[in-house]
Amino acid sequence: MADLDNIAKEFANYYYTTFDNDRKALAPLYSDVSMMTWEGTQHLGTANIMEKLVTLPFQRIAHKITTIDTQPSIQGTNAIIISITGQLMFDDEPKPQQFCQTFQLVNNNNSFFIFNDVFRLNYA
Amino acid sequence: MADLDNIAKEFANYYYTTFDNDRKALAPLYSDVSMMTWEGTQHLGTANIMEKLVTLPFQRIAHKITTIDTQPSIQGTNAIIISITGQLMFDDEPKPQQFCQTFQLVNNNNSFFIFNDVFRLNYA
Repeated sequence: MADLDNIAKEFANYYYTTFDNDRKALAPLYSDVSMMTWEGTQHLGTANIMEKLVTLPFQRIAHKITTIDTQPSIQGTNAIIISITGQLMFDDEPKPQQFCQTFQLVNNNNSFFIFNDVFRLNYA
Repeated sequence: MADLDNIAKEFANYYYTTFDNDRKALAPLYSDVSMMTWEGTQHLGTANIMEKLVTLPFQRIAHKITTIDTQPSIQGTNAIIISITGQLMFDDEPKPQQFCQTFQLVNNNNSFFIFNDVFRLNYA
């Protein structure tokens, strides 16, 4: 699983660094068939997903990854499942919030795009 | 998505009720190609997964589901992704722990089995 773990780690680091610095730049990671469920609301395709992400009601955000787990998806799909837990700091809130996020990445000509994306905060 | 949401809800209720009452009875939900990552350790196939689940070091456990999110998986796979967050009570510990768990279920002749299973506690 070492290769998949490396892919997942590189993806997660890139995704959250980009998210924290310039959310607009996440657009190339999605496609018109991508699905994102953000705190229970569903968004289909790059345009809708990006509209949601860029209008989230905070100015500054910082993700800190706690765990990354990776598994190959179903045979023949050339896809991987990545499940991430971590902490989020919003704006000037002093206390981090826990989050978990699951992705399914599909390999398309040696580059991966996000097919499934499910994000949840845990109000611990 | 209403059908998928119903499948996910039924699955989650059945899975955690069975887990809390008689973990051995989860075996028919897995297959020889199923993967489970439990707090970072990987287990492949029903026998290995069940050995892990039945030897977990607690006597009593109760899951309480907080959220269930569902998406269809890649076209042609006849599979769904389910991401669950919730709370766990172990034995006599007074404070619940947060968990998140992601499943990919594959429809095989109108019954679903677990292909991917990733479980993580959040030590909030």
